[in-house]
Amino acid sequence: MKLNHVGIVVENIGQSAALYQKFFGLEPLSEIVRDDYQGVNVQFLGSDADGTTVELIEPLPGASPARNALEKGGGLNHLCFEVPDINEALARVEGFGVVRVRPPTPAPAFGGRPVAFLLFRGIGLVEFVEIASS
Amino acid sequence: MKLNHVGIVVENIGQSAALYQKFFGLEPLSEIVRDDYQGVNVQFLGSDADGTTVELIEPLPGASPARNALEKGGGLNHLCFEVPDINEALARVEGFGVVRVRPPTPAPAFGGRPVAFLLFRGIGLVEFVEIASS
Repeated sequence: MKLNHVGIVVENIGQSAALYQKFFGLEPLSEIVRDDYQGVNVQFLGSDADGTTVELIEPLPGASPARNALEKGGGLNHLCFEVPDINEALARVEGFGVVRVRPPTPAPAFGGRPVAFLLFRGIGLVEFVEIASS
Repeated sequence: MKLNHVGIVVENIGQSAALYQKFFGLEPLSEIVRDDYQGVNVQFLGSDADGTTVELIEPLPGASPARNALEKGGGLNHLCFEVPDINEALARVEGFGVVRVRPPTPAPAFGGRPVAFLLFRGIGLVEFVEIASS
């Protein structure tokens, strides 16, 4: 699978994006996109549109997994891999100590493509995004 | 800057590499390399030698920053960016609330190229590796 992005939980996307740009030359690759399914705003940053990117994740007000992560200090949160068929990918990994955090939901930041979050024992939080090119 | 890898602290490289291969199709891109400067064994994994890779980090016995990270649960640990000149890169970021965790040291996993670890306020742990191509 291709690594699509590294998700990073931050308190304020605007402030953090400015730091990533200043220190590492990472430029915004998208607008800030609101995702009510996950209760977050997200923005992708990168130095190269073809490379792996960083996803900044800012929890919206209210309870959410991202809010929980922020309250534990935030920072590096998950790896996101591209899969050609999300239901096939989920079926293939379940039954190996993998916990599906929630069913697949559309991701506004990916034009409505389905994403799913899974907790892998010994690995941590992983996102799958259905992208045909992988 | 180009993102070189995402560092992940694990208890046992062999066991974790097998999981990453099984679940995500990530293949070893290197041997397991011992790094006595950091007190760790490391191995790079990826699905594509040109893409961003994952670095599995297994603390050697004894005290080390990686051992501390493992004792807090391990998992996603740092982002590593490529810089053309590590001293120039360090000089450019210091003075902005950035803490240099240790001076540049040779990295056996990068053929002895110098690496440095920095703690960025609001960002977390970041590694710079001196790679001329960036």
